[in-house]
Amino acid sequence: MNAEIIAVGSELLTPERVDTNSLFLTDQLNELGVEVVTKCVIGDDLERLADAVRRAVSRSEIVVLCGGLGPTEDDLTRDAVAAALERKLIYHPEIAAALEQRFAQFRRKMAEVNKRQAFVIDGAEILPNERGTAPGQWIEESGWYVMLLPGPPHEMKAVFTRQCVPRLARIVPKMAIQTLVLRVAGMGESDLDQLIAPVYRKYQNPATTILAAAGDIQIRLRARCPSEEEASALVEEVARPIELLLGEHVYSRNGHSLDEVVGELLRERRDTLAVAESATGGLLAERITSVPGSSDYFLGGFITYASRMKVEWLGVPEETIARCGAVSKETAEAMALGARRRTGATYALSITGLAGPDSGGEDAPVGTFCVGLADAGGCVVLQRVFPGDRARIRQFAAQMALDMLRRRMLRSG
Amino acid sequence: MNAEIIAVGSELLTPERVDTNSLFLTDQLNELGVEVVTKCVIGDDLERLADAVRRAVSRSEIVVLCGGLGPTEDDLTRDAVAAALERKLIYHPEIAAALEQRFAQFRRKMAEVNKRQAFVIDGAEILPNERGTAPGQWIEESGWYVMLLPGPPHEMKAVFTRQCVPRLARIVPKMAIQTLVLRVAGMGESDLDQLIAPVYRKYQNPATTILAAAGDIQIRLRARCPSEEEASALVEEVARPIELLLGEHVYSRNGHSLDEVVGELLRERRDTLAVAESATGGLLAERITSVPGSSDYFLGGFITYASRMKVEWLGVPEETIARCGAVSKETAEAMALGARRRTGATYALSITGLAGPDSGGEDAPVGTFCVGLADAGGCVVLQRVFPGDRARIRQFAAQMALDMLRRRMLRSG
Repeated sequence: MNAEIIAVGSELLTPERVDTNSLFLTDQLNELGVEVVTKCVIGDDLERLADAVRRAVSRSEIVVLCGGLGPTEDDLTRDAVAAALERKLIYHPEIAAALEQRFAQFRRKMAEVNKRQAFVIDGAEILPNERGTAPGQWIEESGWYVMLLPGPPHEMKAVFTRQCVPRLARIVPKMAIQTLVLRVAGMGESDLDQLIAPVYRKYQNPATTILAAAGDIQIRLRARCPSEEEASALVEEVARPIELLLGEHVYSRNGHSLDEVVGELLRERRDTLAVAESATGGLLAERITSVPGSSDYFLGGFITYASRMKVEWLGVPEETIARCGAVSKETAEAMALGARRRTGATYALSITGLAGPDSGGEDAPVGTFCVGLADAGGCVVLQRVFPGDRARIRQFAAQMALDMLRRRMLRSG
Repeated sequence: MNAEIIAVGSELLTPERVDTNSLFLTDQLNELGVEVVTKCVIGDDLERLADAVRRAVSRSEIVVLCGGLGPTEDDLTRDAVAAALERKLIYHPEIAAALEQRFAQFRRKMAEVNKRQAFVIDGAEILPNERGTAPGQWIEESGWYVMLLPGPPHEMKAVFTRQCVPRLARIVPKMAIQTLVLRVAGMGESDLDQLIAPVYRKYQNPATTILAAAGDIQIRLRARCPSEEEASALVEEVARPIELLLGEHVYSRNGHSLDEVVGELLRERRDTLAVAESATGGLLAERITSVPGSSDYFLGGFITYASRMKVEWLGVPEETIARCGAVSKETAEAMALGARRRTGATYALSITGLAGPDSGGEDAPVGTFCVGLADAGGCVVLQRVFPGDRARIRQFAAQMALDMLRRRMLRSG
């Protein structure tokens, strides 16, 4: 079965915005065994949008529309799909009532325009949206399926996975698909590819995609076979030698992020963690605490942005900063030891560096970072120079800190 | 004049890849005064591609195709456009000769398949490509223009700017374009729209787009006029009454983020800031320090994730946490006052709340947040319940904290 994705919204036709919802949807559809054959972005224009829906329905079995379900006059998806399918829009007072209740829950009065969101295409099933005001809609006729989803990614994802995936799973002919994602830290993309390309290039199935972010690489293997067993076996046939080649660089094979993997290790061992950040300004702690339940192992952190705070809060000797600089192995070590002493955590990570764009009077080049890890045995510090802009440099540093801790925990058994 | 962009290539229909060429092309076309009304991604499929070209030509004056000009059998753009326009493909021996020479220059022999790249649509102008093997093509007939561009970004950019922009500049009626972005905090999207729609709906020009993130709304106004002056005047004509209606909710009219605006205010006034975060776990500090030069005003922060840290580091009375809870106005106030006392900053912001997904034993519902702001005059605390998932709830809370500080600084002159 083939699918088309139509992203709706004039803001997606500006030079600043890309439609990323379609990436999530493509991934989900591929998992179900559905190929995406066309993606479109259409502005807030009733005629064009209706025309696109008509064309899509005429040639593809599955049509997914994203966005344009909001309360404003610009939100035309409901009207356009109704026009394209020659169906009426019907007002559902129970949706309006639920919306009103939702607003009341947040102690706000519903605006009159929100009632637009209570219109449903004749014959459509309503797809509840627990995360926002715009419900989705599901329409089927012999041979094709059209679904209307809200545009905000967190709403779209929830409605699609909870409402559309189960429905599609019943419709789409079964083809077993197995995906395995190996996640890798502490290696550059081209080094990695040079090492593992001889393995994966021999295979068309599974398909291999390599995605690189700052200090974080994903190797995605996806096999399609008649049976689960064949697909699993094929994925493993490629994954195994890759894992052997990459060794400890592979930090997960279940898609879990480094934040999650480190959290799982800490929880298993009943260890605790504290951080002391300078140049990353809270990014490391933010990543650690983005994991639900991180309060089980994360005690807290010091963002010692000003040098004075490093001295007062962490007990870094003024003399160390004066002699070695705020960005130095010595300062990073004193920060990590200080954070551990102040919290009693099993481990303390520290980061100090130059995120740029200016070097802030330090001698070292922009991108220079020292990352410290203190535990009962003392403290190790690594120094690196990271490439990229301010945001990317900070990501590299936070990633390296987490990876140091992961490797330490693995080695200490 | 209107344009459509068609990106060609099955690799652009995978979950990992987005078409970014269209962003560059949109920017260039907008600069010329051309609106992009539709973007499509089509796989390597002759029928679908020809169909997309036929539709595009039937409704838009300018059609830009990107990709599919390579030498392999997957590269179908030439054939598809020829089919759609009912023209022949003509072999140009001089292109083949130039290709052969290009290969010789890199001491390689040209593969036979490369001769496919010497086929040109009947009546098309050849657009030389100095950076690659695939030349572009330019086709015009009364009323519409079709251009075929290579897919690799550096080739596409060079061919478009050198060959297409000068041709388009002669064709497109001269139009000046002015864009203004008003950014708004502290208001919901539907409330905002209800308030300002009566203003902007009266105008087709400027076009208005509203973009909403967690607690952050952008109102983009774009005017197209014969002269710069008219375009500026028109944008202001709509922006002014919107600003009057939204008042203090508007935090910037130059595109600057709330992080930047708060930083600019602090720097101007030579004030300093510290933070104490619980549930946002460093997100607030991370946003503040994402701005280059934030060390001028940001002293540091405490991430007091465990209750014990709130007591030990910030001096929050144990009794307050026991009696009122870690998520309470009283605890938020004690955190802000403690952070200010510990740092000597002009302002201290505190955040405590329940980001979910579990309520962590607190009585309040997930999403409940207390945000405190302490200064020389004392401390104010606001309590809110934010909707969404963990990440979104945290974003709302950090945004609200920054906005409280901005409003306080504006009011104190």
